[in-house]
Amino acid sequence: MKTIITTLLLLLLFAATSYAKKDKSAQGADLLRQLEAGFASDVAQHGHDAFITHFAEDGVEIVDGGGFNTKDDMRKQPAWPDGTTLTWTPVKAEMAASGELGYTYGNYIYTARNKEGKVVTSYGKYTSIWKKQKDGQWKVVVDMGNSSPEPKSGK
Amino acid sequence: MKTIITTLLLLLLFAATSYAKKDKSAQGADLLRQLEAGFASDVAQHGHDAFITHFAEDGVEIVDGGGFNTKDDMRKQPAWPDGTTLTWTPVKAEMAASGELGYTYGNYIYTARNKEGKVVTSYGKYTSIWKKQKDGQWKVVVDMGNSSPEPKSGK
Repeated sequence: MKTIITTLLLLLLFAATSYAKKDKSAQGADLLRQLEAGFASDVAQHGHDAFITHFAEDGVEIVDGGGFNTKDDMRKQPAWPDGTTLTWTPVKAEMAASGELGYTYGNYIYTARNKEGKVVTSYGKYTSIWKKQKDGQWKVVVDMGNSSPEPKSGK
Repeated sequence: MKTIITTLLLLLLFAATSYAKKDKSAQGADLLRQLEAGFASDVAQHGHDAFITHFAEDGVEIVDGGGFNTKDDMRKQPAWPDGTTLTWTPVKAEMAASGELGYTYGNYIYTARNKEGKVVTSYGKYTSIWKKQKDGQWKVVVDMGNSSPEPKSGK
């Protein structure tokens, strides 16, 4: 009887530990999705300025067709012209067990005026890596994008 | 006197802890660079097959001009034709404090034959995210690339 109770208690402990681990992992992913939503909402309101704010001092934007833009490089860029918008939606989010480093990847939609002044939409994918800074704030350490095919019409 | 000794001991402990932390962080970055070097060397020998081997079962290749390729998508792709090579060099590597999730980003050089059979070189940048799997093996969970400008001649 004693053995059965011990076994049951051990199984319960194992289940509780597994649950806590899974729960922590889900919480980490949720936090990353919240960070992306906050970042996207800030960019919707404040454009490029918001983009800079969310980067770590040693963060980089890995520019499609360009190089590794540091935060200082980004500070030198002009504000986004009227008609420029950037929105994105994570497909996956994953946090390290230590809870200070995580990533999301997903799809983005970018609009900007072309030379003729017409707003043109581009579609792409992104990966963002987030790191909790020494002051407790979460910042982007890596952001990279590449292009997607145009969505099929009728979808 | 006792206070001075206690203070000195505390400072020593603090310094030792900081050093150990830094050392662990450097070790993590070194491991990631080794993983990239091993991956690149395997790809140099075995091409696309090696590419697949190094991906986690739930890993994705975020294809420039394409979508999110799962490992199963990658398995369906044909072997690289003769003349295809891919090499890459990390610029930065960083590991989570928990030591099971980390990333590197850097530059890649890709060669492939064009329709006329001439080997053409493309330049780009990449981000790879690595995760230690349950069996202890390190695998790529995210790999993304985008293009760089042609290097200036005379460099």
